[in-house]
Amino acid sequence: MQAIIINIGNELLSGKTINSNGAFIAEQIAKVGITTKTILSIADNREDLIQHLTSSLKIADIVFITGGLGPTNDDMTKQILAEYYAVGMKTDIQSEENIKAFLQKRNLPITKINLDQAKVPENAIIFPNLIGTAPGMGFYKKGKYVFSLAGVPFEMRNLIKTEIVPFLLQKLDLEKIYVRDILTQGMGESFLSQRIEKWEKALPKTISLAYLPSPGTVKLRLSAKGDKGKIILQGEIDTLIKLIPELIWGYDDDKLEKLIGIKLKEKNYCIATAESCTGGHLTHLITSISGSSDYFKGSIIAYSNEIKEKQLHVSSQTIKKHGAVSEEVVKEMAEGVCNKFNTEIAISTSGIAGPSGGTKEKPVGTVWIAVATPEKTIAQKFIFGDNRQRNIIRSSYAALNMLRKCLE
Amino acid sequence: MQAIIINIGNELLSGKTINSNGAFIAEQIAKVGITTKTILSIADNREDLIQHLTSSLKIADIVFITGGLGPTNDDMTKQILAEYYAVGMKTDIQSEENIKAFLQKRNLPITKINLDQAKVPENAIIFPNLIGTAPGMGFYKKGKYVFSLAGVPFEMRNLIKTEIVPFLLQKLDLEKIYVRDILTQGMGESFLSQRIEKWEKALPKTISLAYLPSPGTVKLRLSAKGDKGKIILQGEIDTLIKLIPELIWGYDDDKLEKLIGIKLKEKNYCIATAESCTGGHLTHLITSISGSSDYFKGSIIAYSNEIKEKQLHVSSQTIKKHGAVSEEVVKEMAEGVCNKFNTEIAISTSGIAGPSGGTKEKPVGTVWIAVATPEKTIAQKFIFGDNRQRNIIRSSYAALNMLRKCLE
Repeated sequence: MQAIIINIGNELLSGKTINSNGAFIAEQIAKVGITTKTILSIADNREDLIQHLTSSLKIADIVFITGGLGPTNDDMTKQILAEYYAVGMKTDIQSEENIKAFLQKRNLPITKINLDQAKVPENAIIFPNLIGTAPGMGFYKKGKYVFSLAGVPFEMRNLIKTEIVPFLLQKLDLEKIYVRDILTQGMGESFLSQRIEKWEKALPKTISLAYLPSPGTVKLRLSAKGDKGKIILQGEIDTLIKLIPELIWGYDDDKLEKLIGIKLKEKNYCIATAESCTGGHLTHLITSISGSSDYFKGSIIAYSNEIKEKQLHVSSQTIKKHGAVSEEVVKEMAEGVCNKFNTEIAISTSGIAGPSGGTKEKPVGTVWIAVATPEKTIAQKFIFGDNRQRNIIRSSYAALNMLRKCLE
Repeated sequence: MQAIIINIGNELLSGKTINSNGAFIAEQIAKVGITTKTILSIADNREDLIQHLTSSLKIADIVFITGGLGPTNDDMTKQILAEYYAVGMKTDIQSEENIKAFLQKRNLPITKINLDQAKVPENAIIFPNLIGTAPGMGFYKKGKYVFSLAGVPFEMRNLIKTEIVPFLLQKLDLEKIYVRDILTQGMGESFLSQRIEKWEKALPKTISLAYLPSPGTVKLRLSAKGDKGKIILQGEIDTLIKLIPELIWGYDDDKLEKLIGIKLKEKNYCIATAESCTGGHLTHLITSISGSSDYFKGSIIAYSNEIKEKQLHVSSQTIKKHGAVSEEVVKEMAEGVCNKFNTEIAISTSGIAGPSGGTKEKPVGTVWIAVATPEKTIAQKFIFGDNRQRNIIRSSYAALNMLRKCLE
């Protein structure tokens, strides 16, 4: 089963709006085994839609169209679909009722322009839209489906999840696909691929692997088709875990910042941070989790040496001897904030985020990270790149990953 | 001038990654008058690229391709382009040098797989990529351009801005479009549009206006075509400034966090922050600016009342009487960190980021922000929404905007 997704909207082509509708539909239908062949952003214009609808139906079994259903644009999509199927238009009574109810509930006037949204091609299967005025529509001809939905993301998402996917599951004999994301930290995509090359090459043909890198993490996405997909997938994951145990930190929708929160709560530990080069970003990640106030006490962002000394009690001798970006300083920072905020755990960072400030011995991207626990304080050196933003993000995730390992 | 953008990546079709590359390129080329006809997300697969490249070149003057250049996927895009232009491959010496330097700087081994990225079709115009290993490539035949860039967003963005757009401006006789972004803070899109409705309706037809909202800021993008575009545009902007003087804080690529840095430097002021609900994000914004260590000393992230009292010397009486989210506490926080870090300026935040923790009197989204200056300490209350992430971001920008006003 192959689908093509057509997202209509001039704002998508001016670059003002990023097309998130396409990705949403693709992800939802992938879960029931429908492969997306192409996602198209096209202009709000008759010729383009006719051309892409026609060519898409030659290739795909299912075509999803979003947009072109608003009250202000003459319902282009509906007219074109009626012409395509050579049918007239009808008023869908239930949709008309839904529109009236929707507007009344919000104290909005019921206008002709809104009621016109209940007019649909005669052969349309209607999927009621209770959170907007444009009903969802489905069409079937010669073994091919077309779905036309509003472009407003939350209306479209609701229709896909509650109406269209259940409809397709009922109508089509879909092959189940099992998908698992393995989340890794600490090795770039190309080195990781070399490390697991043998395993990757030996994967059965029913399993596909994708590398999904983002700053600070590489996701390995494994998909398996067929009845035994789930069992085969788990077998391969078990092998992978043995190959890169130190790199894997989670699965699927896990977040490192959430994971460490759970572990801290389990151990009844409180945490504090002392940041230099990460400048608040590490603390921002920790506090982005709702409920983090249960285990996170606070942070000292010590950008200047003066504050490292006065607030974190890093010795001026240590700074003089080893420099602010050093194992010794980052350890004293972690221990200093632990003592000051009376926590069991602390993380600290000190590095050269760049783009300036690097030296031959300590180039831009050099970062020291320390974790203090009740047992010991450990520190590790990292060398990242020369992009300030990425260095900040990668350092923050590296710090969380060090903490995760300490908590295990 | 019409362009088609082809973004290659299986992750785009599985829905795991939203295609932001397409929108970025469309936005950048729109600024020099190139219209995007279609944005396509296609699979990392030979047949699909050949088909879409061929059909796109029938319609468009310029085709942008991102992706398919990584070291792990056999350089599909390059091979196909070489075949399309019926040329062989060559090693680009400068790219090879860049790759070596890139890897050496990061203490990474120089592998064959990486060096192969310097192999390019013989007719390629090379755009050096200094922040990654895949060089940008351009091709020209029969009046049509093709550009092939890495899919990694920050590498692609850098090449588009610094290499490809200047190249196109030089090569093509483009109709100049003047674009200015007016950056506002403090009023939502729909209220702002009501406030400037009369002005908007009276805009000449050669000028178009778009609202580009993001959490914490609304961009008003004005575009003007024609020879007199620049002058007419400036006239309209001057009128707009008089209408909403208190909302406008900058233009085009200005960043609030950069702007306040410049102002602090001018006045020779140092700044510190004391954050509760923003949990490090405000400090992260300030320190995301290179050179911020010249004026930023440090921060105390005081998530618990204990730390507000002990570190910031907020009186326990004040917390008891008014609660931690109050004018009084937020003012004491700002003054406390000013004294402690010995700075002229401080900003502080205290609020309920949510989703839990709200009460009837102080619902989720209630945030107090204070700015302490050598003259006085001011505080303001904001009521944002119920989304934790958005509340954190909006509070941080509101805080920076308050500071900006104080510094003017």
